[in-house]
Amino acid sequence: MTQRFQFQVNATDGRARTGVISTPRGEVRTPAFMPVGTAATVKAMLPESVRATGADILLGNTYHLMLRPTAERIHQLGGLHRFMNWPRPILTDSGGFQVMSLSGLRKMTEEGVRFKSHIDGSEHWLTPERSMEIQRLLGSDIVMAFDECTPFPSDEKTARASMERSMRWARRSRDAFGDRPGHALFGIQQGSIYPDQRAESAAKLREIGFEGYAVGGLAVGEGQKMMFEVLDYAPDMLPADRPRYLMGVGKPDDIVGAVERGIDMMDCVLPSRSGRTGQAFTRRGVVNIKNARHMDDPRPLDASCTCPACTSYSRAYLHHVFRAQEIISSMLLTWHNLHYFQELMEGLRGAIAAGNLAAFVKTFHDQRAMGDIEPL
Amino acid sequence: MTQRFQFQVNATDGRARTGVISTPRGEVRTPAFMPVGTAATVKAMLPESVRATGADILLGNTYHLMLRPTAERIHQLGGLHRFMNWPRPILTDSGGFQVMSLSGLRKMTEEGVRFKSHIDGSEHWLTPERSMEIQRLLGSDIVMAFDECTPFPSDEKTARASMERSMRWARRSRDAFGDRPGHALFGIQQGSIYPDQRAESAAKLREIGFEGYAVGGLAVGEGQKMMFEVLDYAPDMLPADRPRYLMGVGKPDDIVGAVERGIDMMDCVLPSRSGRTGQAFTRRGVVNIKNARHMDDPRPLDASCTCPACTSYSRAYLHHVFRAQEIISSMLLTWHNLHYFQELMEGLRGAIAAGNLAAFVKTFHDQRAMGDIEPL
Repeated sequence: MTQRFQFQVNATDGRARTGVISTPRGEVRTPAFMPVGTAATVKAMLPESVRATGADILLGNTYHLMLRPTAERIHQLGGLHRFMNWPRPILTDSGGFQVMSLSGLRKMTEEGVRFKSHIDGSEHWLTPERSMEIQRLLGSDIVMAFDECTPFPSDEKTARASMERSMRWARRSRDAFGDRPGHALFGIQQGSIYPDQRAESAAKLREIGFEGYAVGGLAVGEGQKMMFEVLDYAPDMLPADRPRYLMGVGKPDDIVGAVERGIDMMDCVLPSRSGRTGQAFTRRGVVNIKNARHMDDPRPLDASCTCPACTSYSRAYLHHVFRAQEIISSMLLTWHNLHYFQELMEGLRGAIAAGNLAAFVKTFHDQRAMGDIEPL
Repeated sequence: MTQRFQFQVNATDGRARTGVISTPRGEVRTPAFMPVGTAATVKAMLPESVRATGADILLGNTYHLMLRPTAERIHQLGGLHRFMNWPRPILTDSGGFQVMSLSGLRKMTEEGVRFKSHIDGSEHWLTPERSMEIQRLLGSDIVMAFDECTPFPSDEKTARASMERSMRWARRSRDAFGDRPGHALFGIQQGSIYPDQRAESAAKLREIGFEGYAVGGLAVGEGQKMMFEVLDYAPDMLPADRPRYLMGVGKPDDIVGAVERGIDMMDCVLPSRSGRTGQAFTRRGVVNIKNARHMDDPRPLDASCTCPACTSYSRAYLHHVFRAQEIISSMLLTWHNLHYFQELMEGLRGAIAAGNLAAFVKTFHDQRAMGDIEPL
């Protein structure tokens, strides 16, 4: 196993790429979807089950973990991998996005962000330096630079000021990260929907130099059309020999469109959160299991799916346990959704390797257009 | 595999027995502890995980299942085993106990009980005949006769009237059960704490004839001391060549005491319910994982336990996920508790087979007296 962080592109199809990220903790096949393990658990899943769905890497949330159980405690207990029983790679976000969206009273300055915990109101600081320290204490394999996720919409002037601050914070993040063989620091491109700002941000990040690069400031309310417009040019501004990560994306068709546009990594709470609210993703679209039409349906969610929810249970059972608010409902639907997302990634990787991504994407859209299966 | 319901005692030690119940759906090693799968799921567990703890048989609740999703629906979907993905034996209660404790307005007559659902207020009847029909529709392997669980305390006259009605209902249950090879009907002894009534009830049940017998009306508030006093004589009144089932028991020391007194089968929600409220059963007593002293404890719940919660997680992690109200907390602690209960049963069976139950029971009590592990 490699002792260094490496990325190798094995095949391309148009702008899409497939390859492998190698880390001391294992390989990540790209394009990769990262399930989110916010509070040191992918909700309703055991880590071995997450692995069984095909996940190579998880995402952990710096904001949540710094507040509870605290990064210092996790460090003392041997790091996040050991704490949560996930020996494979972990990427942690910088805490920047969530501190802005979740915390109470907060004040942002050039130094960083002062905020109050949403759990107990206690006061905390997040700065590039503190974010690097927390992510080091957690033992994260892929560390994200501390940035400001530019709100959408932002006018050019606001976006530029935000981007420029994020670039200064990127520099401070790089300096604070230090020399950590086997661990990677990713820079985050900002610039909102303005191509010149995206280019300027990319140039600045390349000048600093990172092991990977994220396209930031997307999936924040701009909609798929506008997101794809940015993805039509923004990833190409980043080094082709480094992984490109689109944060917080997304729905299956978002993922497919992002991969077509050269994205290598993504993460989203959607499969796990939807699992808990009774929504199942299938080849033929979203199934709302709480709908009364499933009450007597002996068929699986998706007859072609090999996850435990589909191989061992009827829609009628899944409907029943959802209605009865049984925990197994969240367990089975989350497993199914994560399985579906990973299977989609496997399909995308195979299609890129085989040079038939366009056909794969056409089938993907055609199946969804058919809608859910026939009435009984 | 046998096509008949059979019970064989392989060894005895004092009044304790170990043996095997054989059914077309598999064998049940006795003494057996049955996890409770109230609404067609053992809460927070996948059925294969329940099996991995060592469970041979589950208990299903007639009252809950008749209301949701309904016995007719489960029957149409292929029966309870298929519905909930548990191919092994299932015992169902008669619904009598829960209709008295859970339902709204109810009226009991010689015919049966009329009641309102606690879910939607709809009106239902439970009678011996309807209970037999529901348990047949569910496909239960071991069917319980419909009875009235005599409240505690009851004076002799009240207890007698209740017992006599239960015996008339036992006759009607037997008649309604019919001829169902491979399935068993268990009669339930009543008589409260009155030996003569227990004897009369046992005689009546033996006259009717059942494939197994339950000691009813216990674990309803009388306390362990009084329960053991009844168990000192009541099981011996029942046929020695048929399984004896103590319903709704219990805590680990209740189980040990019941097995010492000749009980072959038990069930209780305690391991699963406690798992969800942060209580873990170990050799050395109960651990309240929410206690702040676990916050930094790198040790497992029980270093000698081979369940996933103990082999892969620290007390600190279990404390964290309980505090954060993460579903994995219920999943891991329930698994641990069910594992502990099944391991206890395995220990009891082995000790009876080896003729050293007294030594086993002494060690059991000595370990618990030591209290939880040392402070860090």
